[in-house]
Amino acid sequence: MKAVGLVVEYNPFHNGHGFHLKKSKIAADAEIVIAVMSGPFLQRGEPSLISKWARAEMALKAGVDLVFELPYSFAAQKAEIFARGAIMTLEALQCDSFCFGSENGQIEPFLRTYLLLEEHRDHYNELIKEHMKKGYSYPKAASLAFSALSAGNDTLDLSKPNNILGIEYVQAALSNHFAIKPLTIGRIKADYHDTQLTATPIASATAIRKSIFENGESAGGIQGYVPESTISIMKEYVLQYKHLHNWELYWPLLKFRIISASAPELRQIYEIEEGIEHRLQDAAGQSQNFHEFMTAIKTKRYTWTRLQRMCAHILVNTTKAEMIPLQKHPSYIRLLGMSRSGREYLRTVKRKLPLPIVSRLSAFHSKAIKPDIRASRVYALGLPEPYQSRLMKREFEAPFVLEI
Amino acid sequence: MKAVGLVVEYNPFHNGHGFHLKKSKIAADAEIVIAVMSGPFLQRGEPSLISKWARAEMALKAGVDLVFELPYSFAAQKAEIFARGAIMTLEALQCDSFCFGSENGQIEPFLRTYLLLEEHRDHYNELIKEHMKKGYSYPKAASLAFSALSAGNDTLDLSKPNNILGIEYVQAALSNHFAIKPLTIGRIKADYHDTQLTATPIASATAIRKSIFENGESAGGIQGYVPESTISIMKEYVLQYKHLHNWELYWPLLKFRIISASAPELRQIYEIEEGIEHRLQDAAGQSQNFHEFMTAIKTKRYTWTRLQRMCAHILVNTTKAEMIPLQKHPSYIRLLGMSRSGREYLRTVKRKLPLPIVSRLSAFHSKAIKPDIRASRVYALGLPEPYQSRLMKREFEAPFVLEI
Repeated sequence: MKAVGLVVEYNPFHNGHGFHLKKSKIAADAEIVIAVMSGPFLQRGEPSLISKWARAEMALKAGVDLVFELPYSFAAQKAEIFARGAIMTLEALQCDSFCFGSENGQIEPFLRTYLLLEEHRDHYNELIKEHMKKGYSYPKAASLAFSALSAGNDTLDLSKPNNILGIEYVQAALSNHFAIKPLTIGRIKADYHDTQLTATPIASATAIRKSIFENGESAGGIQGYVPESTISIMKEYVLQYKHLHNWELYWPLLKFRIISASAPELRQIYEIEEGIEHRLQDAAGQSQNFHEFMTAIKTKRYTWTRLQRMCAHILVNTTKAEMIPLQKHPSYIRLLGMSRSGREYLRTVKRKLPLPIVSRLSAFHSKAIKPDIRASRVYALGLPEPYQSRLMKREFEAPFVLEI
Repeated sequence: MKAVGLVVEYNPFHNGHGFHLKKSKIAADAEIVIAVMSGPFLQRGEPSLISKWARAEMALKAGVDLVFELPYSFAAQKAEIFARGAIMTLEALQCDSFCFGSENGQIEPFLRTYLLLEEHRDHYNELIKEHMKKGYSYPKAASLAFSALSAGNDTLDLSKPNNILGIEYVQAALSNHFAIKPLTIGRIKADYHDTQLTATPIASATAIRKSIFENGESAGGIQGYVPESTISIMKEYVLQYKHLHNWELYWPLLKFRIISASAPELRQIYEIEEGIEHRLQDAAGQSQNFHEFMTAIKTKRYTWTRLQRMCAHILVNTTKAEMIPLQKHPSYIRLLGMSRSGREYLRTVKRKLPLPIVSRLSAFHSKAIKPDIRASRVYALGLPEPYQSRLMKREFEAPFVLEI
């Protein structure tokens, strides 16, 4: 059985994801679709709108056969580490290929760009450093360095977030000499950063989330942009938990921790560097909500995304000492859900898997999974009781794996 | 001007406190009454019902001339350390005497008991150790040890909490050879542990707090047991902040911290000993509120009070490394409020004071005051916005001292 791997967040699953899913299956000529999905905290450092269980269910309903959780130590991370964890997981799962969305749907520019970067790695890193000294954020510095490097070559526009992720996927696969084959399909419409719903049936997840919050969490305004299953799963979620998750729900906890921690304690947290702990402490004391806080700490040097990830690490209490050893490669694969064919696939490849499959968080005794356990618990703590305990139960009591 | 010192909590101020205040002034033949009062967290490890500002106002309205805050590092502590901090503060303030309430109002049994304990200190400590090995809590073991030691002597009943505090006050004064003179007056009615309001106009603070919470925080049921000023100040507090503080308000923050901290981090917290951090982490995950949590962790060895203090230290994030050096003696005196005569007194003694008077928390740059700053901030964090910011403002913005 040929399997294609997808790296996803599905926050929430929408028609663009559906398009990507179908086209990838065709492009890869695959019978099985495997998704590796971020858990409670996403790549951009946000808590997911609804729990990973609801998102895994959306994936299964839309035709994904196996959903695995990208560990927290790879999920709330910059593109390079996020891509490494995801592609290593898909390789371990014996996927024949992985397929990501890109601006023009051609894999060659990614391959050429990868080779160009490999060849000029040192010069490229130097250029990035130079730009960062001028006060630019890492993504901006990398994009400027790349422009200089690629002048005259037919390469990628690395100012597009999807292309940055794409090149990191390709690099993870090629630099590790993996068997998994990189594929890409063209994205249709909807810019990554679009915040408005448009007339076409494809809209960005950002625009869809915005509409959900503006429409009083009713999920009403997104009809036409998401499959029916997304709407019914979201409605069920609001019925069960009364809230959709966003940073504001976690603000009281984050503020408490930033204010009550000592500066040396904050400095132990992953990604807290360059004295920013003092800036965080001053701003937290002055701010009444998360948005106010973020606006107060934002500078040219720190992207909103990077700051959100810092906040996630403070909330989940992940230290440098804990995180850095976990970033080289995943040491387990957490199964969230499967279809009948997914289960069949898993049975056929089981003996070949180089990593243990984990279906119950608390039954797997490894340091590596501790950040995931804390992230899941902290994610539930954003809700008031009795929803908090209900969500905690979903995570730590059976059924441990969704099956459809 | 002759001054008498009182050690108080006023949570809230009631007729029993009024009686103690008037009788102490007479017994000491004093013109000035100075109160040293615990701040946001009390000796028994609870957050105070209303802020220290409201409690200081109650004190001033009832005739206290100067109100000082007992630092957090002495306030949320066992009797010995609490008494040490309080009596050292009153001695530093040049009080002629201090006066505490006791069962029979005679100072001689306290003096005799102090001498007996001094004489047999080693044997006494050995007896305590033996009883603790049997699994008794420290207060119970101390009371048993003392009974054995004092058999046949006319000493104190050290199973009474007020007598325990009294003997610690006397010991703090005498063992340090202080000039301050110990006095006591008899308490009338109302047992320390009474939980019911009675027909007399004196009721325990416990019974009054219980009535306040049972009457929907309206302060209505306590009329007759507290002065008019207590009722109006409490009504104003509820108008301003919409809440009366109790542990349940802080439960989401406490749970978050216990769950997200690592066991070694919890072990650094003051008073976290003997592996209790694991017990706390297990129970926190299972509990939906503070009472449930406390019931789950309570054992014969750990009194409710001691466990509450542990919770306060976790919340305020006070570590052993930070707290232990602060317990020998206070290094500043924090002024909360004064009457006209109080100000006059302060002027006359100012040059003789061995410790700095602090009227603005954030203007006094000392490590010693950091736990107080955190305790005040964390105390405010129990309230939702906008009450939280309003209370924070009261603490960190002018006026810094109440004057009546």
